[in-house]
Amino acid sequence: MKKFLNEAVDFVDEMLDGIYLAHPQLTFVNDDKRCMVVARRRSGKVGIATGGGSGHLPLFLGYVGEGMLDGAAVGGVFQSPSAEQMNEVTKAIDQGAGVLYVYGNYSGDLINFDMAAELSDLDGIAVRQVVGNDDVASSVVGEEHKRRGVAGIVFVFKAAGAAAAEGLPLDEVTRIADKARARTRTMGVALSSCVVPEIGHATFSIGEDEMEIGMGIHGEPGISRQPLAKADKVVDEMMGRIFAEQPLGQGDEVAVLVNGLGGTAKEELYILFRRVSQLLTERGARVKHVWIGEYATSMEMAGASISILHLDEELDRLIGAPADTPFFSHRNA
Amino acid sequence: MKKFLNEAVDFVDEMLDGIYLAHPQLTFVNDDKRCMVVARRRSGKVGIATGGGSGHLPLFLGYVGEGMLDGAAVGGVFQSPSAEQMNEVTKAIDQGAGVLYVYGNYSGDLINFDMAAELSDLDGIAVRQVVGNDDVASSVVGEEHKRRGVAGIVFVFKAAGAAAAEGLPLDEVTRIADKARARTRTMGVALSSCVVPEIGHATFSIGEDEMEIGMGIHGEPGISRQPLAKADKVVDEMMGRIFAEQPLGQGDEVAVLVNGLGGTAKEELYILFRRVSQLLTERGARVKHVWIGEYATSMEMAGASISILHLDEELDRLIGAPADTPFFSHRNA
Repeated sequence: MKKFLNEAVDFVDEMLDGIYLAHPQLTFVNDDKRCMVVARRRSGKVGIATGGGSGHLPLFLGYVGEGMLDGAAVGGVFQSPSAEQMNEVTKAIDQGAGVLYVYGNYSGDLINFDMAAELSDLDGIAVRQVVGNDDVASSVVGEEHKRRGVAGIVFVFKAAGAAAAEGLPLDEVTRIADKARARTRTMGVALSSCVVPEIGHATFSIGEDEMEIGMGIHGEPGISRQPLAKADKVVDEMMGRIFAEQPLGQGDEVAVLVNGLGGTAKEELYILFRRVSQLLTERGARVKHVWIGEYATSMEMAGASISILHLDEELDRLIGAPADTPFFSHRNA
Repeated sequence: MKKFLNEAVDFVDEMLDGIYLAHPQLTFVNDDKRCMVVARRRSGKVGIATGGGSGHLPLFLGYVGEGMLDGAAVGGVFQSPSAEQMNEVTKAIDQGAGVLYVYGNYSGDLINFDMAAELSDLDGIAVRQVVGNDDVASSVVGEEHKRRGVAGIVFVFKAAGAAAAEGLPLDEVTRIADKARARTRTMGVALSSCVVPEIGHATFSIGEDEMEIGMGIHGEPGISRQPLAKADKVVDEMMGRIFAEQPLGQGDEVAVLVNGLGGTAKEELYILFRRVSQLLTERGARVKHVWIGEYATSMEMAGASISILHLDEELDRLIGAPADTPFFSHRNA
């Protein structure tokens, strides 16, 4: 296991120490470093919270900041945070306008965030939930409720965060987050496994010349293991599955996220984006927003995912709005 | 070789296609995609150009943009761009105030950029040069002119870019760039090799439990190969070598860059920064600017480097000034 770490058991907490030292705009509540909130809260604004396992930086906590999220409950590596953590975050960020939870569709998170919502209700805080399920590889059409949330959730964070920053009320922020969720599709491909520090060996094995299309960000099985193909062919297959559900064409506008899973060079992400752009242009669709880099990782896993958000006027405005978090920064031109 | 690519020979040009499609604020001159310049040039401003081999994204071209660089000559993977490319970039970005070259200390780059400076002189353009040599592992004290330029060059880009944006004249911008260079020290450690696409196999081999302290970003030999140690011990050794040359203490202020070489998870970079911060705080030094992430890579190489810039008032202001490039964004709070 070639990682910079001290004791595996301290991986998350020492990472958090580094995060708080580096980013003083973040702080924590209830004496628990794993209950992260923005240091400056804006009165009257709808709060947006997320949470999830560690090992996915920038997910989840990296988007806590201006114009995106107000708080995050931080779990162990690939483990859900507790309901109590999420409730503490909720209490800290509520400014009287209620709180929206945006998180990925995983059973542990669903149970704990449901419970957190109940606890928060007892505290008199209105809570809504939007559950990211953008990974088209994880179920057939018609069973979207079974789909995992992966990198496309960052589009939901961005749209919801900008809506809250505009001062919209909880039900409106929820409507927008849910619309961004419903209009986002992601396909991933893995080339190597990651190593969970406390386990110390690869989560799965994959041949030197193989790729796995549709693998999840914790190493969940994908839909096909194949010989590693040329980059354009890989993109064609991934985008084919996205287009099957999002028949984009003339006049459609999209945001594109080409996400590195951790161990893949940025140069390669641009080679992938080149083909994504060609395919969209061939169909007459217009790329309005482009994010390329590491947005949702599996630590050092090699691989990539492509997320497409089918914009409308409202989402275009919100995706393009200014934001400033430790891992995401956008300002208007 | 587990990379997303089509033909190895097209790696750089297809990457550049992706870059131009994603970032319309960048363009190229002389019909050569490898002669990159900012699309909007500001009249009367000193131009700043860099250049170097590909395979190091965000280096070099990723810092072309507002508040940093005006142009970059792009070479093949780990290969110097030509004098002609650099001269074309120079002619395109010169606004009558002259051009500063900032690049790393490698023999090919030195030869080609010297020649480009001569060509540009014949074109009537004043050119100055500052050659980054921040890698303390690559020579002993007293022979700093032999040192390689590595991640710390980004501090030089930032300081020089901000100085030019303030409207300072060429000699002042050069003075500031040279001061940032002289006050920056970097130490790196590699855990794995990268694979050059046209070669197709690892540049060097390293054992499953080994690290190499001081390795260069092209796989140049370091100063010691050792069993992989705990993260804090690795940082202690690296910072020990930096402190030996930069005896930072009470009242000193620094900028810190913890740079991932490509294949190392962001979580680990924060674990490294935690210790860097502890060591600086123990000495009474104050961390004013923190950059953590991938700033200068060797494609998918696992490993990290630590760069320390010893600030003065002027550098503090310039490092903190706004900037907006495809790979670097900072705005004032």
